[in-house]
Amino acid sequence: MNNIENIIRLAHGGGGKLTLQLIKEIFLPAFKNSILEKLEDSARINFNGKNIAFTIDAYTVNPIFFPGGDIGKLAITGTINDLAMQGGIIDPFISAAFIIEEGFEIENLEKIVKSMKEECLKNNVKIVAGDTKVVEKGLADKIYIITAGISFIPEKVDLGVHRIKEGDAIIVSGTIGDHGATILSTRYDFKLSNSLISDCASLKDLVKSLLENDLEIHCLRDPTRGGLGTILNEIALKTNFGIIIDESKIPIKNDVRALCEILGIDPLYLACEGRIVCFSSWEKRNDVLSIIKENPLGENAMLIGRVTSKFSNKVIMKTTLGVKRIVSMFLGENLPRIC
Amino acid sequence: MNNIENIIRLAHGGGGKLTLQLIKEIFLPAFKNSILEKLEDSARINFNGKNIAFTIDAYTVNPIFFPGGDIGKLAITGTINDLAMQGGIIDPFISAAFIIEEGFEIENLEKIVKSMKEECLKNNVKIVAGDTKVVEKGLADKIYIITAGISFIPEKVDLGVHRIKEGDAIIVSGTIGDHGATILSTRYDFKLSNSLISDCASLKDLVKSLLENDLEIHCLRDPTRGGLGTILNEIALKTNFGIIIDESKIPIKNDVRALCEILGIDPLYLACEGRIVCFSSWEKRNDVLSIIKENPLGENAMLIGRVTSKFSNKVIMKTTLGVKRIVSMFLGENLPRIC
Repeated sequence: MNNIENIIRLAHGGGGKLTLQLIKEIFLPAFKNSILEKLEDSARINFNGKNIAFTIDAYTVNPIFFPGGDIGKLAITGTINDLAMQGGIIDPFISAAFIIEEGFEIENLEKIVKSMKEECLKNNVKIVAGDTKVVEKGLADKIYIITAGISFIPEKVDLGVHRIKEGDAIIVSGTIGDHGATILSTRYDFKLSNSLISDCASLKDLVKSLLENDLEIHCLRDPTRGGLGTILNEIALKTNFGIIIDESKIPIKNDVRALCEILGIDPLYLACEGRIVCFSSWEKRNDVLSIIKENPLGENAMLIGRVTSKFSNKVIMKTTLGVKRIVSMFLGENLPRIC
Repeated sequence: MNNIENIIRLAHGGGGKLTLQLIKEIFLPAFKNSILEKLEDSARINFNGKNIAFTIDAYTVNPIFFPGGDIGKLAITGTINDLAMQGGIIDPFISAAFIIEEGFEIENLEKIVKSMKEECLKNNVKIVAGDTKVVEKGLADKIYIITAGISFIPEKVDLGVHRIKEGDAIIVSGTIGDHGATILSTRYDFKLSNSLISDCASLKDLVKSLLENDLEIHCLRDPTRGGLGTILNEIALKTNFGIIIDESKIPIKNDVRALCEILGIDPLYLACEGRIVCFSSWEKRNDVLSIIKENPLGENAMLIGRVTSKFSNKVIMKTTLGVKRIVSMFLGENLPRIC
């Protein structure tokens, strides 16, 4: 490796620039194949004429319990969502691995397992395989959960960056940064307000309603680690299009904004765990918006911008002050273990 | 929970009695479904008339490099093997998650990724999805790798404990305990001999040759954590049959035996990472044995025992001294992070 330092830093796991560098310089060259190279939220595998979505995610969130959820709920919704972003909404199955620190309270394990169970029941998802490893005290932070998911993609559904066109509308399904702000506020025990709550939720039914209607949906992403700003940059880089967004249209809760101002963090890089960034044809934008708003998870949905060929590989934001600024790629520092 | 202490102990991850207790008292009641309840090496899912095997495993082995392999090779072969034990030998796909400690040398990550790549190429397996998380220094032991796998099961193949019959032959495909002995000897730097080497290997082709011939194979297991003794006990418990094995027939390398004698460990509980325990009809036992012996990984295969209805739920061993003893379930203490 030339362009990277010789040790792993926290930023390599931050979901931003250094994570992408690690993927591009180490993982992709080794595991080279056309499915992995798409770097979508889940892999799309063709088997026997049917398409299967397949994904894995490791959850190391700190703290493990937070307003709106816990590491168990997060692992299930995160996996369901990664599948759904590829259209994998039929018959999801999950496998779960647990790496537990010696001395972890079984009572807390039971709470986490209960959350997983409830989220599975709510979404008609089955956990069909599992593994548990215990490591010596100090060699994990309480518990890490890793979930893999498979599901089937309805026929004719083809979602991904390759489908994005010039002029596409960009819609977010709700306020951004709620999860990231909640984790930070809980971790450092800020007494800002009691209203911060993670948006952690399963998006399967919302995606289903988008796919059932003929809405010309091109690409879906859930802006987790790295937030909206990182997702938009990834897409601008891959498509060679530019992306223009309007700051005044981006839905952000007041408490999230306040926390960001105090900490000097840009809410564009804060993780969401129950939001969709939807790319659809410009013509269908109002239909998409109204379908999303019909779902309780989508009541704050907004059209925030558009894909353009005017500039390439860049995300530009019209700020509330009326000027334009570049939204750069998130470096990945400062916000470790947000999910 | 009534029958378990209120904190997680290392033994809960040892693959023995306490692991089973954790599964039966916490995971199974919560995630209740007929696929998970089978507790095979991988789940068997029916989709559209086709059967898919699906598995996940977390690898936390210490040390991460050892004679015969490393954590990367282990993660790939382990997943391929779990799929193969259910007959999942067609088109395996793997997803991989990495939990890396801050400060880990990128050079070592590259070595591990190279091993994964080589093992994938050798087996025509693709890694199609991944995730990387970095945790603060001290909150992981260098690197943990979690791999999930899916693959397709040939039509008419139905392997599992439910197929085991009275009188079935029990064949192991090679010497037992090589992996466990190698890990212990490397971890504690015993200078016993240089010949200890992990048996870590992919069993896909060996399983393929067993399934292609009409050999009346009923059940396959790879005796990883907990070793041969634990696998046999699990099967005796599930089938209500008894199992009788002959100590003099169990292939064990001299160096493994020597290490076990010094440490006071029973080789029956030492992990294998490239061995099959095969249950087939008694009539076909010699055919099975010769097919296994044709494969370089099976040259030391032995018929070690038989399934019996004479006693129930117990594993009995005729010892080399001519007496019989009960082989009990492994408790799971003393051998953490063997895989």
